[in-house]
Amino acid sequence: MPSVSVKGANMPSSPIRKLAVYAEAAKKRGTKIYHLNIGQPDIETPKEFWDAVKAIDQKVLAYSPSNGFEALRERYARYFAEKCGIPQLTADDLLITTGASEALFFTMLSILDEGDEMLVTEPLYANYIGFAKSGNIGIKAIPTSFESGFALPPMEVLEQAIGPKTKAILICNPSNPTGYNMSRAELEQLRDIALKHDLFIISDEVYREFCYADTPHVSMMHFPELSQHVILIDSLSKRFSACGARIGMVATKNRPVLDTVLKFAQQRLSPPTIEQLASIALFDVKDSYFKEVNKEYRKRRDILVSELNKIPGVKCHLPGGAFYCMVQLPVADADLFCQWMLESFAYEGATVMMAPGSGFYATPGAGKNEVRMAYVLNEADLISAVACLRKGLEAYKG
Amino acid sequence: MPSVSVKGANMPSSPIRKLAVYAEAAKKRGTKIYHLNIGQPDIETPKEFWDAVKAIDQKVLAYSPSNGFEALRERYARYFAEKCGIPQLTADDLLITTGASEALFFTMLSILDEGDEMLVTEPLYANYIGFAKSGNIGIKAIPTSFESGFALPPMEVLEQAIGPKTKAILICNPSNPTGYNMSRAELEQLRDIALKHDLFIISDEVYREFCYADTPHVSMMHFPELSQHVILIDSLSKRFSACGARIGMVATKNRPVLDTVLKFAQQRLSPPTIEQLASIALFDVKDSYFKEVNKEYRKRRDILVSELNKIPGVKCHLPGGAFYCMVQLPVADADLFCQWMLESFAYEGATVMMAPGSGFYATPGAGKNEVRMAYVLNEADLISAVACLRKGLEAYKG
Repeated sequence: MPSVSVKGANMPSSPIRKLAVYAEAAKKRGTKIYHLNIGQPDIETPKEFWDAVKAIDQKVLAYSPSNGFEALRERYARYFAEKCGIPQLTADDLLITTGASEALFFTMLSILDEGDEMLVTEPLYANYIGFAKSGNIGIKAIPTSFESGFALPPMEVLEQAIGPKTKAILICNPSNPTGYNMSRAELEQLRDIALKHDLFIISDEVYREFCYADTPHVSMMHFPELSQHVILIDSLSKRFSACGARIGMVATKNRPVLDTVLKFAQQRLSPPTIEQLASIALFDVKDSYFKEVNKEYRKRRDILVSELNKIPGVKCHLPGGAFYCMVQLPVADADLFCQWMLESFAYEGATVMMAPGSGFYATPGAGKNEVRMAYVLNEADLISAVACLRKGLEAYKG
Repeated sequence: MPSVSVKGANMPSSPIRKLAVYAEAAKKRGTKIYHLNIGQPDIETPKEFWDAVKAIDQKVLAYSPSNGFEALRERYARYFAEKCGIPQLTADDLLITTGASEALFFTMLSILDEGDEMLVTEPLYANYIGFAKSGNIGIKAIPTSFESGFALPPMEVLEQAIGPKTKAILICNPSNPTGYNMSRAELEQLRDIALKHDLFIISDEVYREFCYADTPHVSMMHFPELSQHVILIDSLSKRFSACGARIGMVATKNRPVLDTVLKFAQQRLSPPTIEQLASIALFDVKDSYFKEVNKEYRKRRDILVSELNKIPGVKCHLPGGAFYCMVQLPVADADLFCQWMLESFAYEGATVMMAPGSGFYATPGAGKNEVRMAYVLNEADLISAVACLRKGLEAYKG
């Protein structure tokens, strides 16, 4: 019997999804599950999107251009100019992808060869590890500390990590999984390193709208001196609670890079047509929508963090953006604990699904007592979920 | 300025899409273009699909499971059992992908490591080359001849091509780009080789319904002795003229392979939700739809081939399936000729876009005087397109 590839055998399962089979079994037993594991918001997708879906009137569901419909790219560029202080991007600097996932993977393949390395602060978005492994690309993890709230380490630490194979820095700002929102000073530090060492910066800013401080989000695209270095990754999934649309984007003023991304994009032909067409309408959603959503997430964040920190042995920082936090639990192995919560525990007919922290570290053995939580549930459910977790921890230790 | 990856720089542009920029310019000059370059049918997508799109009534456009919605996988499995003589596949043996493109790429990554090889008959679907290069996987091209109508070479030829790094055979049946429809005897030959040398067979059968002989299509899944060897690739794009839906699938009874594909699928989270939900309704489309579509394509094939063969120096075989043919032109370099047709030629305000043949060969220099044509236009347009090509060839030689 022929066997799977070594690459495939060594590929990690997603920490967000690998426990799905236990969750399914729990559901079949009638247990309610509080999903803190995945960034699937419960916020309604704007009505503009659904109306646009219903208004599509075509005879033939055809391929779109490989770089996406021009109308969508133009609307996206206008959003960057009008809402994000990024006027330099035109529709021709953008390429629509099937989710930010594809944007990230195509970008990595376009600028990194087998054996090349990216610097990434740790903990990091778990699927970065998978995409890198798929292309045999190395991740040089820069540890950040729970104690400092996951702030960027000093310049010297970053520079020491740069080797002859280092070609890029990958950031997620605000960060999934830590919620850390980088300051302008930190981004300037990254800018200086990129210029000095001639590195690309892949800037994943899909949580741009989810910042809970009063200062606006700073984009890596705000540094004109980096025009040839920055590759911006974006997605409509989180901003509009439209995860299932799978509409993402890559943008750069570096023409050779975008031309190379296009070659990978041509191979897969095109992103989904209906969801692209309907997404155009999302850009007409009023600012008040984001203000409301932001207020809601900030409230949820405050509740979750404060409730978690009341549990003995549990530690959670206050994230400045996105809708995730990394949480330290009083257990030796959070992978086993998360599985146990689904397999063997219920409190008042419910249990909690969390993403084990180890999957968010490229460094083997790191994050063993941590989990990532997404505060994408309403207030009452968050409180119930934390109460359930407390009971679970008590039972697990006993 | 940091530069693109060596992999990216060496990646071929898609022969189907790389001339798009010239086509756009021609359109802007007011030239009508007959698109014979891409397999985008003009047949209407069934009403069942559009009705299902409009009937979707959800509040939150959520991610689907990474392997696709169970309802779609179940319906797909029922189709295989009831319509294709493949009763052994259950919903759990299937994984929904974003187009057959993704199914092919994830399958390759799951069974082939860097430096491993697949046998593929040539000419081949151009994007196989791109997917293989993306994973640094080798393609061992098995030439088939224009004169034999692209029949499979004898067993000895195939076996001689097998080396220590050969892990799989990749077939497209019926074939894009040749339209060749393999006989049961040929498939048995492949079966024997796979068993003898313990190779996977990746069987791309997206054109299953497009066979113009009286004998039914034979699937690689019809050989129970290959249950651990065969990985079936499918798509709804061509069958239902729903290319823009980007709904494909991989199926295998080999559990380690499907589990590995799932790990790659988890990284990109999920296929598009709306198009998955609407696709379920496509399986209720009546058989009469396929009969009509088949009749139409057979008529188009007959017209295209007979018209082409009337042009001096042009040679075209009669394909048995799919909706493509490889065509020999009396030009030294079809890449240049195809570009010239878009850049510098028009007849009665129109020109023809074709896919240069060289992109359908992994062997450098092969196919230079060939083009691939897709007969996805109606009868009148096909006749006009060939008349336009004839005038173009006359003008080009002059």
